Amino acid sequence: MLQSRSMQRIKFEELKSTIKKAFIRAGMSEDQAEICARTHAETSCDGIFSHGLNRVERFINFIENGWVKLGARPTLEQQLGSIEIYNGNLAPGVTNAFFAMDRAIDIAKSTGLGLVSLNNTTHWMRGGTYGWHAANQGMIGICWTNTESCMPAWGATSASIGNNPFVMAIPRQEGHVVLDMAMSLYSYGKLEHTRLNHDKLPYPGGFDSEGLLTDDPGEIEKTRRILPTGYWKGSSFAIMLDLLASLLSNGKTTAAIDQYGYGNCGGCSQVFIAIDPLKMNDQPFVDQALKQTIDQLRQASPVGEGGEILYPGERSLRNRQENLIKGVPVHDAVWEKVKKFAGLE
Amino acid sequence: MLQSRSMQRIKFEELKSTIKKAFIRAGMSEDQAEICARTHAETSCDGIFSHGLNRVERFINFIENGWVKLGARPTLEQQLGSIEIYNGNLAPGVTNAFFAMDRAIDIAKSTGLGLVSLNNTTHWMRGGTYGWHAANQGMIGICWTNTESCMPAWGATSASIGNNPFVMAIPRQEGHVVLDMAMSLYSYGKLEHTRLNHDKLPYPGGFDSEGLLTDDPGEIEKTRRILPTGYWKGSSFAIMLDLLASLLSNGKTTAAIDQYGYGNCGGCSQVFIAIDPLKMNDQPFVDQALKQTIDQLRQASPVGEGGEILYPGERSLRNRQENLIKGVPVHDAVWEKVKKFAGLE
Repeated sequence: MLQSRSMQRIKFEELKSTIKKAFIRAGMSEDQAEICARTHAETSCDGIFSHGLNRVERFINFIENGWVKLGARPTLEQQLGSIEIYNGNLAPGVTNAFFAMDRAIDIAKSTGLGLVSLNNTTHWMRGGTYGWHAANQGMIGICWTNTESCMPAWGATSASIGNNPFVMAIPRQEGHVVLDMAMSLYSYGKLEHTRLNHDKLPYPGGFDSEGLLTDDPGEIEKTRRILPTGYWKGSSFAIMLDLLASLLSNGKTTAAIDQYGYGNCGGCSQVFIAIDPLKMNDQPFVDQALKQTIDQLRQASPVGEGGEILYPGERSLRNRQENLIKGVPVHDAVWEKVKKFAGLE
Repeated sequence: MLQSRSMQRIKFEELKSTIKKAFIRAGMSEDQAEICARTHAETSCDGIFSHGLNRVERFINFIENGWVKLGARPTLEQQLGSIEIYNGNLAPGVTNAFFAMDRAIDIAKSTGLGLVSLNNTTHWMRGGTYGWHAANQGMIGICWTNTESCMPAWGATSASIGNNPFVMAIPRQEGHVVLDMAMSLYSYGKLEHTRLNHDKLPYPGGFDSEGLLTDDPGEIEKTRRILPTGYWKGSSFAIMLDLLASLLSNGKTTAAIDQYGYGNCGGCSQVFIAIDPLKMNDQPFVDQALKQTIDQLRQASPVGEGGEILYPGERSLRNRQENLIKGVPVHDAVWEKVKKFAGLE
């Protein structure tokens, strides 16, 4: 079902080709626009609206601002064993990230494990994209990015850490197992969406002006004290991911990104790891590990009668299957705007 | 300050040597007992009482049950590029884990990155031990373990996933930066400790018998519905860590450990990654990344006047510094029991 009256469904191919036209008009090459448009369309199709169609206008603004360099390509800075470090040269974060995960996969095909990092790259949109991509090639994929400061560390009221999305993916015939987890419990996109629907958050997502936890999204938007995933734990994990992204890529920390001034994630650091599970196991072993784990999830007692226990990534797969048939939900106003960018209005 | 009247402080060396005597009387070799006793003593010294002195009796019971094999050693099963897989042969989890992290460090010294995994190992006690150990050698350390089922997956009321502790450590001259995070928000040890002190948890830690979130530790002990770190996020992360531990070690999943019947973590799977940060950065770059990140944490506005914002691992370091001077806090009853095991009563 569509979430609101101001939404409609658009067929995946039309969605993708429209975004692609918009990106070509913004100066992208045919190849670049194809990869980026497919990524935004697939992201909306999987139900992650914030980084799909809804993100097209902002990305085009970043190109116009000179924060994303369309003519740039990643350049190799260091090679060491199964590790390669590239300068992303502020090229589009999406094409940079595909490049890096593909390199990691190539290395993993020969050595079992490849680690490729990017310094000086730009926003990769939905992190899960590169996990699904690795799993589509039969590879375990692990990747993360740092970001500018957008969340208070535990014990602080002002933002000093990023939400640093972290992704793990395991290939599986019947549907990959994929975790795509930001270090804030909710995104600002989720807060806005919930507020506009006059809803409360399912669990408290931040602090109000009196310093109390609240499930009122508008209150949290005012204080900007969003809650780290798991309180002190997500705060610490975000700090580790930031430092590791910097040290593994010879790149910027969150603190340095804050100083840099190239917009959301401008100049950020990213790590991509691919591991070939069939180098150390045979296919029956892998199938069995996945089956027994998912069977055990299914066999647990659900909360409430008829309740479901999903494996990580299952919701995205279901959204995709439904939206490929019925069309991808889009907000009318956003869709009209992107059509204008594409010259279709 | 001691947390209760039934506690006293014991000098670190006396604590360690007493535990060592107990382990030797339980059948350990001098070398094994030295490593294991030091680990338990350091764990208590860092303030992690549940896996330090308090865990000695249970570990000795595991030896007596035949769930931990004192004469066993890890044996190499596979070698591939920078990856080595060992069978832990149910040897003590602590010595196995040191062995594996040391091998990963050796590999990282030549190739930049080493990944060593253990199948069929036993409880490693405090996971952070091996992160601190890697950092003490100037290495980035990442490690995790799977466990038997002890937590309901998100959407379930019965346990089907492990709490799968996850560790990341970064070496730093003035004090390493170390994350040691279980996938349950609180441990059962913390629930018991809080209940015995007639306290409430700082934030809800599980569900009561009516299915509502509660900060009453006794209620959660009854339902055994402990809360994953970050609700659905920690649940998914736990599932990924379990599957990856199994696939990277050709070892057991949580579901298989549940069937195995060798006690808490008996036959579990573990992964140890070491990375040499100075292969890709010079020391001034590393120092600067750490300094700017910790400076940024310190400069944020604290919650409440005089509040502190700590980096991951800072609390452990403070506890250690205090307890090395004043003595390590121990529960009187636990201390008397371990002295008996050591033949000192």
